[in-house]
Order: sequence, then structure tokens, then C-alpha cells
Amino acid sequence: MHHNLHIVFIGAGNLATNLAKSLHQHHFKIDQVYSRTEDSAKLLANAVGAEYTTHLEDVLLHKDLYIISLRDGAFLELIPQIMEQKSDALVVHTAGSIPMDVLKPYTQRCGVLYPMQTFSKSRAVEFDTIPFFIEANNEEDKDLLISIASELSSKIFEADSAQRKKLHLAAVFASNFANHMYSLSAEILQKYGLPFESMLSLIDETTRKVHQVQPHKAQTGPAIRNDQDVMNEHLNMLKDMPDIQAIYKLLSSSILNHKSDK
Amino acid sequence: MHHNLHIVFIGAGNLATNLAKSLHQHHFKIDQVYSRTEDSAKLLANAVGAEYTTHLEDVLLHKDLYIISLRDGAFLELIPQIMEQKSDALVVHTAGSIPMDVLKPYTQRCGVLYPMQTFSKSRAVEFDTIPFFIEANNEEDKDLLISIASELSSKIFEADSAQRKKLHLAAVFASNFANHMYSLSAEILQKYGLPFESMLSLIDETTRKVHQVQPHKAQTGPAIRNDQDVMNEHLNMLKDMPDIQAIYKLLSSSILNHKSDK
Repeated sequence: MHHNLHIVFIGAGNLATNLAKSLHQHHFKIDQVYSRTEDSAKLLANAVGAEYTTHLEDVLLHKDLYIISLRDGAFLELIPQIMEQKSDALVVHTAGSIPMDVLKPYTQRCGVLYPMQTFSKSRAVEFDTIPFFIEANNEEDKDLLISIASELSSKIFEADSAQRKKLHLAAVFASNFANHMYSLSAEILQKYGLPFESMLSLIDETTRKVHQVQPHKAQTGPAIRNDQDVMNEHLNMLKDMPDIQAIYKLLSSSILNHKSDK
Repeated sequence: MHHNLHIVFIGAGNLATNLAKSLHQHHFKIDQVYSRTEDSAKLLANAVGAEYTTHLEDVLLHKDLYIISLRDGAFLELIPQIMEQKSDALVVHTAGSIPMDVLKPYTQRCGVLYPMQTFSKSRAVEFDTIPFFIEANNEEDKDLLISIASELSSKIFEADSAQRKKLHLAAVFASNFANHMYSLSAEILQKYGLPFESMLSLIDETTRKVHQVQPHKAQTGPAIRNDQDVMNEHLNMLKDMPDIQAIYKLLSSSILNHKSDK
């Protein structure tokens, strides 16, 4: 029974924090949390009843499952050190854009457990509708990862490294860039002393809409109407925020170009 | 009692359609719908039990309230014709970016009724949480507009033309540009034969998050982590979609720039 698995987390960032807490709530045993940052390691370890360390050489050996969830650059740099004496353990990472193969030179038991979601430490995420994309180097470990993920979510998919990379790219637009549009909106409002809360009803509806209507068909606003008067006025209002003005220009022309494609 | 008001809609686009239907459901009398496009005029008129016309000179005279909801360019061009013989009627428009003053040369009874939302004809919007921003040229008409809007929504605010223009600009980012990010995400997924539906859980959480956390603090993804490896790989994947690649570049650097500001 996989609740007897002993799990170690390498990383204590947003994703690791949410995933570890969810596993802990589902009665998985997390033995240890590693993070270079002591505060992060300690905070997460305390939350999930684990030990913590800030030294890779002190990561416990002979555990069942190591879940690596580090910033991609740090991950690739640290792989050789992380993988020392892990040749018989199942080692997975959680990154959308890193192929499983980076782990292969070190172990035959490797895989990926990619929950496609935006995580913040300050906000607990409900896992049950998060899609998990799973890959493993052998059938047995794949089944194990599927059965673990199935306890957290009802949306489990298999995806190889190439598919995962494409999903991640699309997710950057759907989530990270959409959120940045909220940030720029908030910045404009703040400049004028208006509250960001006034946008929430609009933001909610924009999101609800794409559950029913393809996004390019849901597009509204001055750009899709090619309403030059409004766009020129908006560009003029942004003249002392040139970086935001450049984004307004590029996105408006992109909206118009994509209209003619469809 | 304002349910005895006789209303005429000048325009039958997305906003006009949703607003007219909502007024109709709340037992307001809509006498006529004008649109240059016969299909649009007819469709909306039938839905709200009104007559329709495609000729401005046939718009009924001596009604109580004229609601102008046209594309901004068309509106400004047609104002003189629309306003003929309306010098004693209350005439309002619904546009975020057009000042109330454009109506003043023609009538002393003018105003604005701006529901800040993204409207599609194919999707009925619940009005009760939509913020309405209201302006009028005299107190009596302002009270009338407030009392009408209060039947549709619980969020009624007064805003002058300058404030409304700022809200509209911020709304373009929060809604129109965010939706375009969904479109680009869908386009990338389509190219790879993956379904847009896989993004919905992520999109929902991104939206829920900004109800609790300021958007710039909710930002996640490779740009805010300055994860050059991932960003370069993504740019490389977009090399045969140069317009989307340019957007990826500009938004990633904007995310990073705004990080250092905060």
C-alpha cells in the first residue's frame, strides 16, 4: 500500500509546498524537506511533520520516492549532486519544461509528476480538479505515480516530455500572462486612485465565458472592433507608462490580426 | 414609476443586446430597436417585444429614454443625426471611453449608463454583480438612471467621464487582453492537437487567486523566476509563430521589470 511510502521533497517552493501539504493531508509520509533556504525548508517541514535540511549531502538515503521541485535552472545544475546514491530510488520531478531524460543517467526508476496549476504558498489550492500529467521510465513506476496522484485528483493523464513542454508553454499564456494583464490593470487603477476590486466581476465573467465559448470568439473590446478612436485615446493615456503602452499596442494589433485569421 | 418609461435602443450589439434583455426581464418597456444591420435589429427587437428600424430617421420621437450603444466611431459620426428632435428627451450612452459632453450640444438631459462587463450575444450575463457607472447632466436624471440601474444590479456607482475612461482602460487589460492570452494559448494547443479544455482548471484558479492576493503578488511562471532556460526553450518553440514569440518576449520582460518595482 503506497501510504507506507517514505517521501522526500527536494525543494520547498510554491508547487512543492502545495503538493507536499496535499500528500500529507492524504496520509502520505513525508520524511524530509530540503531547501537551500532554511526558512522555506523549516516552514514546509513543520507543516507536513517532516525533518528538514539545507544541505543536499544530508538528504536521507534509501527512501521510496524523491520529489524534486526546484527552479529549473537550479535543478539542472544540481542534478548530479541530488542523484548521488539514488540509483535504486524512484526519483521524479514536477517541472513542465524539463524532459524526464535528465534523470535517466542516474537511475532506471525516474518519472515526472506535473500538476498543471499556479501555486502560491499563501493560498491552499484544491487539488481535486487539477490535471496531473504523468510519465515514468517503466510501467510499474508509472502505475505507482498514477495511483498516488489519483488520491489527490480525479484528472490524471499520461503525457510524455514533448507533450508536457507544449502544455507548459500554453499554460504560461493562459495563466502567467493573463495574470500579468491583471497586474497591469491594477497598476493603471492604482495610478488613478481607483480600486482593483472594481475589475473582479469583469474578470470572473471573462473566465466563465471561455468555459462555453472558444476564446477567440469571446473576444470583445476596442481592438477586435478596430475602434481606432478609443485605442488612440488609450495609447495617449499611457504615454507616461511607455512599457505598458508598448504592450497595449502589440496586443491590440495581435487581436486584430487573429481576427482576420479566423 | 419608471416601469412606465418608454425606452428606445440605438444599437443592437453585444452590450445593447444584454442590457435590453435584462431591462425587458425587469418589466421595462422597450418600444423600438435601431440597428444599421437588419438581422441584429430584428433579433433584439423580437427578444424584447419591440419594433425595429434600420433607418435613423424612423426612430420614434418623444420617448422617455434613448440608450445609445454603438461602436464608438459610428456613434461619434452619427450623433447629429441621432440627436435630431431629441432636445427634450433623456439620452444616454453606454460607452466607457466617450465623455458625456458629446451629447450636451443637443440636449440638457443627457447621461451615461456604463455597465463594466464583457458581453457576447450568445451568452446571457447575470447583471446583479456588474458594476454600473452612472453620470448625468442634472440631479433628477441621475436619480432616475440610478433607480433604473438599481433594478438590474446591486453595484451602482457614480463616475464622471474622466474616471470612466480610466476604468475602461484598466478593463481592456483585465478582460480583453487577458482573454487574448487565452486565445493565444488555445492557438498553441491547437497547433499541437491538444485541447484548450486542459487549461480551464488553471484559468479558474488564476482568477480565484486575485480575489485574495494582489495580482503582482500572485504572479508565477518562468518570467517572475527569471528562469532563462525555460524562457529560451519556449521562445524556440515559438519560432514559427513570430507574432506570438514577440508577445512572449515583451510580456516576460515586463513581468520581470515589474517585479523589481515592487
